[in-house]
Amino acid sequence: MSGGADSLDENIRAWRECVNARLADYMQPVQDCPSRLREAMAYSLLAGGKRLRPLLTLLACEAVGGIPEAALPAACALEMVHTYSLIHDDLPAMDDDDLRRGRPTNHKVYGEALAILAGDALLTLAFEVVARDIQPPAVAAACCADLASAAGDCGMVAGQVVDIEAEQMGLSTVDELEAIHRRKTGRLLTCALTMGGRIGEASPETLEILKNYGQAVGLAFQITDDLLDVSGHADKLGKGVGKDADAGKLTYPGLLGIEESRRRADALVRQAIQLAGQLGPRGQRLVELARFVGQRDH
Amino acid sequence: MSGGADSLDENIRAWRECVNARLADYMQPVQDCPSRLREAMAYSLLAGGKRLRPLLTLLACEAVGGIPEAALPAACALEMVHTYSLIHDDLPAMDDDDLRRGRPTNHKVYGEALAILAGDALLTLAFEVVARDIQPPAVAAACCADLASAAGDCGMVAGQVVDIEAEQMGLSTVDELEAIHRRKTGRLLTCALTMGGRIGEASPETLEILKNYGQAVGLAFQITDDLLDVSGHADKLGKGVGKDADAGKLTYPGLLGIEESRRRADALVRQAIQLAGQLGPRGQRLVELARFVGQRDH
Repeated sequence: MSGGADSLDENIRAWRECVNARLADYMQPVQDCPSRLREAMAYSLLAGGKRLRPLLTLLACEAVGGIPEAALPAACALEMVHTYSLIHDDLPAMDDDDLRRGRPTNHKVYGEALAILAGDALLTLAFEVVARDIQPPAVAAACCADLASAAGDCGMVAGQVVDIEAEQMGLSTVDELEAIHRRKTGRLLTCALTMGGRIGEASPETLEILKNYGQAVGLAFQITDDLLDVSGHADKLGKGVGKDADAGKLTYPGLLGIEESRRRADALVRQAIQLAGQLGPRGQRLVELARFVGQRDH
Repeated sequence: MSGGADSLDENIRAWRECVNARLADYMQPVQDCPSRLREAMAYSLLAGGKRLRPLLTLLACEAVGGIPEAALPAACALEMVHTYSLIHDDLPAMDDDDLRRGRPTNHKVYGEALAILAGDALLTLAFEVVARDIQPPAVAAACCADLASAAGDCGMVAGQVVDIEAEQMGLSTVDELEAIHRRKTGRLLTCALTMGGRIGEASPETLEILKNYGQAVGLAFQITDDLLDVSGHADKLGKGVGKDADAGKLTYPGLLGIEESRRRADALVRQAIQLAGQLGPRGQRLVELARFVGQRDH
């Protein structure tokens, strides 16, 4: 599956299937977990999606010479954390969204109480999976600390708080917007790469390269997301086009215009490609992934 | 502080102060955490309370011959997980409570969105603290796995789901009630003891004794909680007396009567004392703590 002759597309599709299969394993019914709770967790976790974070973990592990399979639990944990954040962000008290990935949001199907609890359970399960299934234990502990720091009150949760505050107070500079994205999505994407690197026994210098790559790709991803919201097709995105702009959300095209936003995304993709190049031939898939992020249309 | 001549009361008071001081350290403002989020987290985390879970961790570590100070991060993590569960349980979509420990609940002060996020952040911080601050890393990983399993979809979150279902469906046997409490409060109390044991390098047999002690004390604690709700004083409890019964909640006195509930609690306390006795002289404080749980009036 990691043969150099495969196209990135085939490689990514194969790994995505691996991730989806392992996620489904983690969602198997177990005696002590109420079936309705497990169902609510699986509804959002197994709803598809790009699996960008898990893929970054597996490709990072591969890029530093590790065995990607060994990083699968960490890859799944990232998707659990990402999914919990979507469930909670969609709640009526937060963004109050009815649709996610083209389907009714979790609380629309299971009610608010179960949606909150399903999110809580997914976040908790992420740490259980990393702590229990990553070897050796010292790497598991380092990954747990990484993941918590990226997801927590100085990372993803902080980003969501600042995002809510920005909507109320009407912040308006690109620096402020980047500060939100760096925490709301950037930290977790970066963590995806460093966890993969740790599991592949990367040196501190290599972890630093992976981290910088993650920051560049993360921001590029966010800008293209904003661009797609302006110009994309509703059927490919699974949400109403222009919804962010309608909601008065701060976006790159809104602040910089479409052309300048496009230019920034391209520059970040070039930066990411240069960083991945420093990892040598094994980093080739990360090069291709950065290119893919710059060109994606959904 | 661990001299045999100290009374349990003095010992507990001293350790509680240690826990409160360390919790306050963990709540110090940091640059990347929005001040309003940190404030909402600290509002509930530093609101006082018995600190039962942290105390169990420290006493368990001491009882197996470990250094309690080494278990302080785990002790604090348990209080963070407990506090997050209270914040989320109090939300309008869940129990919809306005008062907690005699003060307005988190969402009453900070709004629903920030209350949800403060809970999420406390849960995440708990894992960060254990993964980063417990040594050696192999023990940190084992503690993270323990904590996640106790708090997650087969533990505390499961208990909350079953509790909500029970209220809607009107379950009515003591077995069903115990199944709820075992998960909703029992698993985390048991985890408090086994984490302390792990950090003190306890043998698997000793961890098993600590686990059984935790189950007995946990259930005794829950029964006395129900009894206090019937007969206690509102000013000592910080919530309206009889509130659980009014809300149609399943309680031990409601199912078994006050006398039989009292008898069960006493039997569980005796069982816990017998188990702690197996740990030898160093387990003496756990003996006293079990006695204290049986006699508490708030």
